[in-house]
This record gives sequence, C-alpha cells and structure tokens, in this order.
Amino acid sequence: MDDYIERIRSGSLKLYALEKELDAREAVRVRRAFIEEETGANLDTIGSFSMDIDQAVRKNIENMIGAVQVPVGVAGPLAVKGEYARPSCYLPLATTEGALVASVNRGCALITRAGGADVRVLRDGMTRAPVFAARDIVHAREIVTWVEEHMTEIREAAESTTSHGKLFEIVPYVAGTNVFLRMEFDTKDAMGMNMVTIAGAKVGDLIERETGARLVALSGNMCTDKKPAAINLIRGRGRTVVAGVKLSDDLIADLLKTDAETLALVNYRKNMVGSALAGSLGFNAHAANVIAAIFIACGQDAAHVVEGSTCMTTVEKVDGGAYVAVTLPSLPVGTVGGGTGLATQRECLDLLGVHGGGTPPGTNARALAEIVAAGVLAGELSLLGALAAQHLARAHQQLGRG
Amino acid sequence: MDDYIERIRSGSLKLYALEKELDAREAVRVRRAFIEEETGANLDTIGSFSMDIDQAVRKNIENMIGAVQVPVGVAGPLAVKGEYARPSCYLPLATTEGALVASVNRGCALITRAGGADVRVLRDGMTRAPVFAARDIVHAREIVTWVEEHMTEIREAAESTTSHGKLFEIVPYVAGTNVFLRMEFDTKDAMGMNMVTIAGAKVGDLIERETGARLVALSGNMCTDKKPAAINLIRGRGRTVVAGVKLSDDLIADLLKTDAETLALVNYRKNMVGSALAGSLGFNAHAANVIAAIFIACGQDAAHVVEGSTCMTTVEKVDGGAYVAVTLPSLPVGTVGGGTGLATQRECLDLLGVHGGGTPPGTNARALAEIVAAGVLAGELSLLGALAAQHLARAHQQLGRG
Amino acid sequence: MDDYIERIRSGSLKLYALEKELDAREAVRVRRAFIEEETGANLDTIGSFSMDIDQAVRKNIENMIGAVQVPVGVAGPLAVKGEYARPSCYLPLATTEGALVASVNRGCALITRAGGADVRVLRDGMTRAPVFAARDIVHAREIVTWVEEHMTEIREAAESTTSHGKLFEIVPYVAGTNVFLRMEFDTKDAMGMNMVTIAGAKVGDLIERETGARLVALSGNMCTDKKPAAINLIRGRGRTVVAGVKLSDDLIADLLKTDAETLALVNYRKNMVGSALAGSLGFNAHAANVIAAIFIACGQDAAHVVEGSTCMTTVEKVDGGAYVAVTLPSLPVGTVGGGTGLATQRECLDLLGVHGGGTPPGTNARALAEIVAAGVLAGELSLLGALAAQHLARAHQQLGRG
Amino acid sequence: MDDYIERIRSGSLKLYALEKELDAREAVRVRRAFIEEETGANLDTIGSFSMDIDQAVRKNIENMIGAVQVPVGVAGPLAVKGEYARPSCYLPLATTEGALVASVNRGCALITRAGGADVRVLRDGMTRAPVFAARDIVHAREIVTWVEEHMTEIREAAESTTSHGKLFEIVPYVAGTNVFLRMEFDTKDAMGMNMVTIAGAKVGDLIERETGARLVALSGNMCTDKKPAAINLIRGRGRTVVAGVKLSDDLIADLLKTDAETLALVNYRKNMVGSALAGSLGFNAHAANVIAAIFIACGQDAAHVVEGSTCMTTVEKVDGGAYVAVTLPSLPVGTVGGGTGLATQRECLDLLGVHGGGTPPGTNARALAEIVAAGVLAGELSLLGALAAQHLARAHQQLGRG
Repeated sequence: MDDYIERIRSGSLKLYALEKELDAREAVRVRRAFIEEETGANLDTIGSFSMDIDQAVRKNIENMIGAVQVPVGVAGPLAVKGEYARPSCYLPLATTEGALVASVNRGCALITRAGGADVRVLRDGMTRAPVFAARDIVHAREIVTWVEEHMTEIREAAESTTSHGKLFEIVPYVAGTNVFLRMEFDTKDAMGMNMVTIAGAKVGDLIERETGARLVALSGNMCTDKKPAAINLIRGRGRTVVAGVKLSDDLIADLLKTDAETLALVNYRKNMVGSALAGSLGFNAHAANVIAAIFIACGQDAAHVVEGSTCMTTVEKVDGGAYVAVTLPSLPVGTVGGGTGLATQRECLDLLGVHGGGTPPGTNARALAEIVAAGVLAGELSLLGALAAQHLARAHQQLGRG
Repeated sequence: MDDYIERIRSGSLKLYALEKELDAREAVRVRRAFIEEETGANLDTIGSFSMDIDQAVRKNIENMIGAVQVPVGVAGPLAVKGEYARPSCYLPLATTEGALVASVNRGCALITRAGGADVRVLRDGMTRAPVFAARDIVHAREIVTWVEEHMTEIREAAESTTSHGKLFEIVPYVAGTNVFLRMEFDTKDAMGMNMVTIAGAKVGDLIERETGARLVALSGNMCTDKKPAAINLIRGRGRTVVAGVKLSDDLIADLLKTDAETLALVNYRKNMVGSALAGSLGFNAHAANVIAAIFIACGQDAAHVVEGSTCMTTVEKVDGGAYVAVTLPSLPVGTVGGGTGLATQRECLDLLGVHGGGTPPGTNARALAEIVAAGVLAGELSLLGALAAQHLARAHQQLGRG
Repeated sequence: MDDYIERIRSGSLKLYALEKELDAREAVRVRRAFIEEETGANLDTIGSFSMDIDQAVRKNIENMIGAVQVPVGVAGPLAVKGEYARPSCYLPLATTEGALVASVNRGCALITRAGGADVRVLRDGMTRAPVFAARDIVHAREIVTWVEEHMTEIREAAESTTSHGKLFEIVPYVAGTNVFLRMEFDTKDAMGMNMVTIAGAKVGDLIERETGARLVALSGNMCTDKKPAAINLIRGRGRTVVAGVKLSDDLIADLLKTDAETLALVNYRKNMVGSALAGSLGFNAHAANVIAAIFIACGQDAAHVVEGSTCMTTVEKVDGGAYVAVTLPSLPVGTVGGGTGLATQRECLDLLGVHGGGTPPGTNARALAEIVAAGVLAGELSLLGALAAQHLARAHQQLGRG
Repeated sequence: MDDYIERIRSGSLKLYALEKELDAREAVRVRRAFIEEETGANLDTIGSFSMDIDQAVRKNIENMIGAVQVPVGVAGPLAVKGEYARPSCYLPLATTEGALVASVNRGCALITRAGGADVRVLRDGMTRAPVFAARDIVHAREIVTWVEEHMTEIREAAESTTSHGKLFEIVPYVAGTNVFLRMEFDTKDAMGMNMVTIAGAKVGDLIERETGARLVALSGNMCTDKKPAAINLIRGRGRTVVAGVKLSDDLIADLLKTDAETLALVNYRKNMVGSALAGSLGFNAHAANVIAAIFIACGQDAAHVVEGSTCMTTVEKVDGGAYVAVTLPSLPVGTVGGGTGLATQRECLDLLGVHGGGTPPGTNARALAEIVAAGVLAGELSLLGALAAQHLARAHQQLGRG
C-alpha cells in the first residue's frame, strides 16, 4: 500500500490509474488511504459499503474512494390511478432533511383516503440541441430548410446509433448565425441523455457535411439539460406528467383542519403570486424536495432535480371540496442505465415494481414518472394543508380578538 | 417480528410508530421486512449500512428502512485561492453518472496547473419571505411603512429565537393585497433554513399583532427556496460566490487542445446565446452536476441544486490567454446541521477541512462555498474545453476538405 | 353646444353618445369643449387635425376629442436584401425622443455602405390561446386527445369565420384542470388579432359542446399578447424575422471608429451577460425604440412593442470583420386593418411601398416585417458602435496613462 | 426646392443637413418633397400639422418630414384616491385600436361607482447600470469594495451633473470579470433617462480612474431599459405603483353581469396560470394597451410600454365582493422633458393637471403615475369583467343543457 501511495505522491502514478495495476477493491482502498493521508481525514465509514465495486467503477464513478450512505424512509401507501404504475406503492425517499418523509407520508394518507391520485403522462421525449455556426443569416435559413426537407435521412442517421431510440421531432432555431436543432427522441425506459447525445453526434456530422454548417457544441443549451429553462416548460423534456386529486370538504376538514377556500387561497398567494413576483419558473411549494429524495433513492441523475423543480401546483375550489393538481413539464427519469443498476438503488426501483426495461418498452419509466408525480402531489398537499390550517387558525384567532 | 408486521397490516400499529415500541435498529428492521412483504422486493443491501441509526431517525429521516449507497470519487488536487478554504483540496463527489468525476478531475488539473482558482464570497445571507394578506392596497402600504419604521423591534423579535443568526435586511414587496417581507439573515455556518423559518414565525406574529396583516404562509415563495427564481440571482440567497482562473495560451493548447478564441466562442454560442434563447435562468454548461455530487457527498440539502443551477459561466479572450469564471448567485451551504452530522457525510466535510462550526463562526460554510465554486469552475472548464477541442478539430477538418 | 354640454353634465346625455345626435365632426367638437370646461385645459391643438373623422370614430377610436401629433423623421436610405421588401427604403420614425432618428440614420448608412442587410422571415403566424376548465386531469387529458383527433373539424370551424385566415397548428397545454389551446393562424397581410379572436370563439364553442370543457377566457395569456413571454420566443408569434450584415474591418474602423473585436465584446458584456444577469427576455440594446417609432408611424398596434422588445442581437468576429444580426422572434405587424387606414399612417406605409393587401396575400406584411428588422439592425449597430468607439478610446487612454 | 432636391440626390447635400441652410419649416418641406419623389408616395397629410417645428427639430426629432396624427379619445370620469393626482380625471388615450377607449371607459365608470381607486406610489427611482471590465474576479471584488467605501465621493460626482437629481443607491453586481453598478436616482418630475445617463458617465470616469476598471458601456442592460427584465420587477425602475378597488357584489352583478368568485377565477386561470405557463414576466390582461395609449397622448417615451407590460393584476374574493388590484413595478413617466413639451402632448398633460414641474418637485410625475395605474386598473376590470360575464353565462347554459 505505502508503495503505491508513495508513487502517487511523487507523481509517477496517477491517482486515477490505480485500477490499471490493482483490482478495483484494492485500488479504492489505496486511493482512500492516500486521501486520508493527504487530508488528515478519517474515511472509515465511507470505506464501509456493500455495492459491487467492479460495476461501480466501470459504469458509475471514477477515482472511487467508497460510498456515502443516505438514509431512506418510506411514505405510503400511496394510491395511484395511472396507466402504468401499480395501483398502490410505498415511496422510497433518500434524504437527510428531517420531517420530509413524515410530511410526504401525511400527503399519501390524504390521497389514499381520497381514493387515489389520477396521473397521466402527457408527453414523453428526451432532447438534445446541438448548436451550429452558419456563415450568415441566409446560410442559417438554408440550414433550417435543408433539415426540414431531409427529415427521413436525418432520422435514419440518428436511429442507426441506437436499438431503441426513435427520433420524432426536430425543432430548428435561428439566432443570428447560431442554428440550434432541438432533436427529441423516444428513449423508452432509459432516461436517454446518452442515447440522444450519441445520436445527436451522428446527425451533427451529417448536417455539417451536407450544409456547410459547423458544429460548435453537441449541446447548445436549448436542450435544456440541468438548467432551469422556459423551453422545457413550453416544449417538454423527459416525461411531462400531471397528477390530481379531488378532496372532499369533509376530508379537508378532517385531515387538514382547514377548508377548500383557504387551501385555494394559500396556493394562489404563495405558489402563484409569490412565484410570479419572484420571477420564478417554478410555481410549487417544495416539489424539488420530493423529487430529489426519490431520485437519489432510485438511482436517477440527481442534477435533474433542476428540471423537476419547475412543477406547477394548482388548487381550485370545486363543488363539495377542492381539486389539487401538480403539473411537471419536464421530468427526466429512467429505469435502466445510470445509477439504476447499483444494488441499493435497484432495490428501491424493485420496491416500486419498475426496475429494468418494461413490457412494452417505455412502460417502466412512465410508471416511475407517474409515481414521482403522485409523490410530488402528496408533498404539496401536505405542506399547503399545514399552511392553510395555520392560516385558518390565525384568522379565527383574529376574529376572536376583534 | 411477524407480530409487528401483522399489527401494521391490520392498521392497529402505524408504520411510523414502530420507534415508539422498539429501539431504532429493530424498528427499521421490522419496517423493512414489512415493506419487503408488501412489495415483493428484496431490500438486503438497503438494510446493510453503518450509520448511527439513533441519530438518523432523530434528526434526518422518518419511516426509515435503511440507506442507499452513492459511490464517491475524488477529483483533485484543486488549488483554491480564496479567503476561507485550504489552498488545496480533493473534491468528494457522490454520483452515479459515469465520467463526471473524470471530467471534473481534468478541470482540477487545469486549474492547479494555472496556479489555482481565485474565489470570493460576495454576499452571504439566507432568506425567508412570509406572505401576508392586507385588507386593501392602502393597508398594504401601511404594513410596509410599519415594517420600515420598526426595524429594531423586528430585529429583536427575530434574533430572540436564535443564538447565532442576525437579521440584516427586510425587503418588502406589495402585489395588490399581498405583502411579502423578504427577510435575510446571517446564519453563520448553518445553511440556515430552519433558523430563518423559526425567526420568521416570530416576526410574523409581531406583524400580525401590530398591523392587522394576516399571515398566509411563512414561505411566500419570494424566498425563493428550491424553485429557480430571478430574485435569487438579483438579490442573492445563501452564499453568492465567484471563481475565476486565467489560462495561458500554452496551457489551453497543451491541456485542452484548443485556443482561447474558440473557448470563448463555444461559451458564447452555447452558454450565452443558447441559454438566452431557451428562456433559461442558468447560463452554464453543467454546474448542477458538480453541485449535486458535492452536496450529496457533504450532507447538503440535495434539492438546493436547483438554486445552484443558475450559475453563469463567462469566458473572455485576454492578452496571452483566456479568463474563465463562474458566478453562483445563490448557493445554500452549511457545515453544521442537516445531513452534515451523518458519518459518511461528515467524513467528506472532514476531507475538505470544513466540518462543524468555523472560527470565527461562518468561516467553514464560506470555505465550503468557495470549494464548490472552484469545483464548478473545474467542471465547466473541462466540458467547455472538450467541446472547443472538437470544434477546432472539425473546423480544421473542414478547411482540409475545403 | 352649451345645451349638449349641459345635458352631459346633468347625466342625461352620455359623453360617448354624442355621435348618435350629432355628426362626427360636431360630436368631437362638443366633447372637446366639455372636457375643456371640466378640466380647465385648452385643447386647441388637439382639435387641429386633418384625418377623416368619420372613419376614425367608426374604426379606431371612441369618445374622440381630436388627435395628438407625433413628429416623423426619416432614416435612410436603407438597403434591404430580403424576399419581400423593396431593395432600398427610407424608414418613417414617429418619436418624441431626440437623437433616435439620427442614430438609426447612422446605422442605415453603415448597412447600406456594407451592401445591405440580409433579412429572412423564418415563421409567420398569429396566435390565440383560449383557456378551458376541465373537471379533473383525466378530463383535461381527454380534451387534448379530442382536439388532436378532430383537427379537420376544428379547422373547418375556425376557417368558416374568415375569408383569408388559415389555422395551421393547435398546441395544447395542460396545467392541472386548466387546458390551453394555442391556435396559430396564417393571417396574410393582417396583423390578425381580430381574426384569430373571432375564429377562436368559434373553436371554443365547438370544444365546449363536444368535450364538456368550459371556456373560461378567449385569451388565456398563453397567446401571449402584449406581455413579455418566453413562449413567444420559443414558439414564435406574429412574424419571426432575422436580419444580419457583415461589416468589414475597414468599414468598422472608418464609420464606427472601433474594431470587430471590441464590437463583439461590447455586445457580449452588455447584451448577453447584462441581460442574462437581469433576468431579461430581451438581449438587445434598444430594439424597442426603433419598433415603437415605426409602429406609431405606420399605424401598427403600439402595445405590440412589448413583443418586439424581446429581440436578440448577436455580434461575432469573423474573418475580415464582424457579423452583426438581430433576431426578432415575435413581431406582430400588418398592412391592412387597425390604424393602417388612417391618412398619415397610410402615407407612411406608402412611403415603404407596403400599404394594403399584398400580391400574393401576406407579402406586404412580410415586407414590413423585413423592413422593421433591418431598421432594428440599424439601430443596434449605431448604438453598439458608439459604445465600442468610446470603449476603445478609453482603453487607449488607459494604455497611454499606464 | 428642386435645387435642394437635386443636391441631395447627387450626394452634395446630406438629407439631415437641410436645417443648416433653410429654416426649419422650409427644410421639412424640402425633405418631404424629396422623400415623395424617391418613394412615389404622397405625403400631404403628414405635412399637415400644427406643432412648433423649431422646437420639434431642436429637441424631439431629426430628419423631420412632418407628423402622424393619432386619434385621441377620453375615458372617464375616473375617481382616483391617491396622494398626488386630482380626485377625478378624464384619461386621454391615443390609439388606433377600436374598442379600447370604450373598454377603459366602462372600467372608469365601474371604479367611480365603487367610490374610486386607491393608488399608492411605492417607490420612485430611475436607474442606469454601466458595465465595467475587471482584470479578474479579485479585481472585480475590489471594484465593488471601492464603490461601497466611497459612496459620498460617487454621490458628489453624480450630483454635480444635475440640478435636481439625487443618487440614492448603487447596487453592484459581479459576473466573472463583468462589474455592473446599478445606480438609482430620484429624478423628480423628469422621467430621467438623460439625467441618469449624464450622471452615470461622470461616475464611470471616477471609477475608471480610481479602480482601474474599464467602462465598457454606459448602459450594461441591468438598468434595464426597454427590455422586459425581472430586475425591474424585483428592484423597481421608474415609479412603482399599485392601484386597487373593492367592488361590492351588487356592483359586480349590476355592471359586470357576473359575480366575485367568477371574476377571481378568470383572473387566476388567465392572468396567473396562463402567464406562468407561458414563461411570462407580465401577469395581466392588457395593461400595455392602456399604458401605450396614455403614453402616446402624453408625450411619454412609447418604448417604455415594455416595462409597463410587466403589471400584475390580482383579484380576490372578499367579504361582500371582490378586491381587484394592479401592481406596476416599473413605470417610467415624466411631466417635463421628452415629448411633454409638444403642443398636443402638453394639452393632454394639462387635461390631467400634471404638466411641467410639480410643487414640490416630483409630485406631478407621481400624479401621472397614479393616473396611469388607475387607468390600467380600469382596463383590467373591464376586460376581466367581460370574460367573467361570458364565462358565467356559458356555465349557466351548460347547466341548462345538463
């Protein structure tokens, strides 16, 4: 061990090259020891894990030193009336923020008592938008025209790189000499970023060759990946999902200690007026909390919480109660690839009955999308309900004082 | 065990109430067994963890069934020239997305070769913005006036709830009858959300009593927490940090295989024009990836990746090279509280030399903010460099074909 | 006269009802006299105008008291290389802001010296997006499905209300129980708001009848009319136009007293970084100035300056100079209807050779769109050039001092 | 005449130089004749105007050929309960869009019947934000620190350029090497753009000299002028105004033929949900229409309609009726300078009793801001009321069919 550490310190062995000389387990051990010496930190618990190291270093991580453990709690049962997910599930939530699981759990109870959350996947497509440089705006226009007239050829090039993916739309954008081609693929059960990147490269080659455009970047930020962006609200990215539930007046009074009108008012003043005034792209109470917790538990790309946070929560007073819904325009999820193959993450997906490829393809990822949406609805209901109950109590107090 | 499971199933024992009858370890075991039976999933690896369960169930999680393991790799060494962080560190990155650590690692090497990243914390404050209902706009105006004239009293109320926090600003907003008071606190080494919520409640009481306003929600979404919002770019939230590095022409040619002009051009077309056209609040390549990985490793609130994703990356050609910088207007981080006390997460903070309260208070959290910013810079450099190298190569190919 | 004024004052005659008893000229005169008495203001010059009152009160204005005179200057000649506009024109600019015409004029000279501005209309469609209420999210989904499956029927209903307009796309949006149908029409030479509103009402009836949706508002703000909105950047509204020009190094040095690199840099720091940091939807220097001036001169709807202000200006250093372009994603213009029939406004359109319906229909409005885009380019060039010249001069000064 | 035209055509006399050889009236006549010959258009009515040409060509326009006439109608009386405006006024509206005046007039009647609109000016300041280039982020930080520590010196420099204006705040922003200083001035009765630009130049010189920063552009787009931008909503620009009115159930039923709940619902679904989903910065029905019409009538800068369009309209059901308000975060208005001195425009300001400098200074501009806000409220009420009445009627029809 000391010998390797010495070589690393002297620069004759790169830290990331340990796996070339040692088996994965040993490489990770040496690397951790080196880091402990360099930083003075004790990394014992990071070194205590049970995942398959070989798989991890091959697919998920480089320069591995171990693993962090994120505690997982469950919320449920949650009744889901979708088209893909099981009718009832327990949500696995990996978080370090106390009270979150309890809050979601309360929302699940409410939804389940109300007969379950209706959920629908409205749209489904992963995007990649390379940016090309044109000579001038006339050339830019020509590139767009070429693309519009050669969709078959482009589709063949794109789909030659993937066994599953289907290119179903290209939306071209011109900004001066900058041409963006926002390509959207059906990626079935994969979240699909890798798939669309590879296919995008192939399309990029074709377009460069045929039009004289120069590919500047495979991602031109109109995808838009991991940045909050209106385009994802307006054109969708990943799965677009909506979940809703009708709560009766009795249920609102009984479980939430408030009434339909107050619930709607709190949502309007906070999630609508407040978000609008803040220049926000998210009109919800805390959707990101639920999404982050499920994503970490289920091996999703945690940075995609960004897209999820643009959820819109709507509450309307209706005859006999309130209707509450969450709309998630951009939810990138997958049940194959990424972190879904790691042991603990796989177990969380199994717990939901959605691990691996679905039958037919795509149905598992859509089921996961439905579950996330229902989970977000539970989280919103719980928090809005708590706020509304306090508000109503305060209003009554004021009347009492008045 | 079976007895408990039977009682849960029959409804006579709530799933979350197991800890009332059993010690934490046993409660988690029974709950996991129940979930396994209900869902048919095997949860063995989730049940295999080494954290302190008592602490976790008390502070971090409810309805616990175990833990997910997220692999951790290191990137570095990374030279940081800030005011709080150690001059050199290794970044702990918890991710399941292959190639991310390798990419950041390459960026670290580049920064370190260039002499290190300059980093500055520009502003530091956690916010909470309760929303109040006024009777009419005249009343709304009066509430604002009252607040402006009673800052001392409000400050006393707010600070009576916390030993560390300092209220340093209240920005009032009126939208019709909706009054938002955006309160900003110095929360020292804590990320501070709990602190400002508790203080906000106290202030809310005071304002209700004195002005006749009615508190509608302790968070009125102008905070703005976990939603992408322009207000956080414009007024800051959490730590506002900027990191930059000058790369010489030689270094750009040698390590990135491109040149300063191409680097600037790729950034302009992708991160500026592309993001602008997408209606984005984030003008970067993949800041969220790096932030998510450090946040999960270091016990930060993973949903706060949303705020971090609004990073702006700027690249300018300068004499003898290029200057590359990242500006993070809203980075909520802490080194005490939340997930920072869990064993593996604590080790990651130790690795960076920033665990716990700093001396003086606040310096550890600022050090962490500096490190995150430098890490984001590394990630941006690496990805932009790769894109620019490809672009330059393609441009040369085209010339060759021409 | 006094008699009428007395009746108005006593409430027995409504101010707007004067035209029922008097001819238009007299009604306007009495009304003006009444307002003079009520307010103590002298309105002589407002009463001094030459337009056809009968036409104005029938089509353009109610409760008329006269007219304001807005001074008109011309900028040009401006060489335009489009597909619809004359190759050279003078821009009529109605403004009260001194220096604006002079600035645009300088830009026109520059463009004309550079051989003219290339201009292309990329997309052309006016939108209306009624909002419907659904019972729940399942119903919302069904409404969308019904629309997708009955496009022929919907198109027939829509087009039965107009002799010219063609419905070419409906984009459905769901947000909880809110269903928006963004309908896009080819409105030929009309700006088209009235046309799409009437057609939209017909479609609204059909959808209510067939799906049980309830029409809440004919405009659901996803159109989006006269509010700055990302959807108009991303899906277009009105005419989407791009104009660009290559400036040689000599021309930049000669006319602008700066160089290509400085020009690109000023645009990047101001129009890109500055706008991005401001949370802006407009990435330009002063596009709204030019658009407002042409719109007022040419009888366009002045409130549509809002959409025009979302222009993006791009500048790139290229071999031998700089390429400067403006992209206007949403420019609502028309050459028939609205204010285009008033005498002075009509003359301004005549001056551009675009008054009335084009041959074939639509070509006049597109020509106007091209001209506006070229005019905006002129304005941007002039202002950016001035800034860059100052910047370069200052940089030289600093060197001299250094 | 022909001689001049010949010289212009030959290039020996510049079109804009006519005023150097001829008096203004003659110069305008010759120029118009030249344009008529060049374009083939008859410009008789443009040539028929009564304004003072000398004043116009000196202050408001270059290359003048005449004037366009925009018809003006009045809406009112409108009862305004502000702190500056007369208690009752008639709004002068210059527009070519039929039905607008009638609509606003209906809203005025409603407000007046309800006892008048409460209006308050919440904030008042015109901004200019130059952008400077720093050497690196450390330098950027130093520049900001210097500014923070030399506010007295900066204020003196700024205020040395103006007899009226007061600099009351500088907000610094850093984005990498880009430093923006958003300076806010009290500009009294002037809209103030010129004043702040001149003062900004002086401050720019000072900062360049003292800090080594390089001024890149006097406006760095964080002002933000004439582009829709969140910063103006969040920090305000021009006058920030709010207007509101309580409508009783009787009044809503009587004049609007709807009820409070429907009115609130239409506003929520259209102005809140619709605008949010569209990625809009404006949450209103048609504020820009009213603002444009008053601005053109009153000699305001028409391009500033952009800022005005970010108005937020809120409607809440309250005991015994509905409360409707409009909040305008950014309304640049003035009663001196710009187009306010032209004869017809001046008469419109006189009609409102706000022409010229107020006593004390600033009160006339604030009165105008109050009037505009009340006018926007009238426009919103009228349109929302019409939509709600239709919606209610449709709902009843459906019930009848059900």
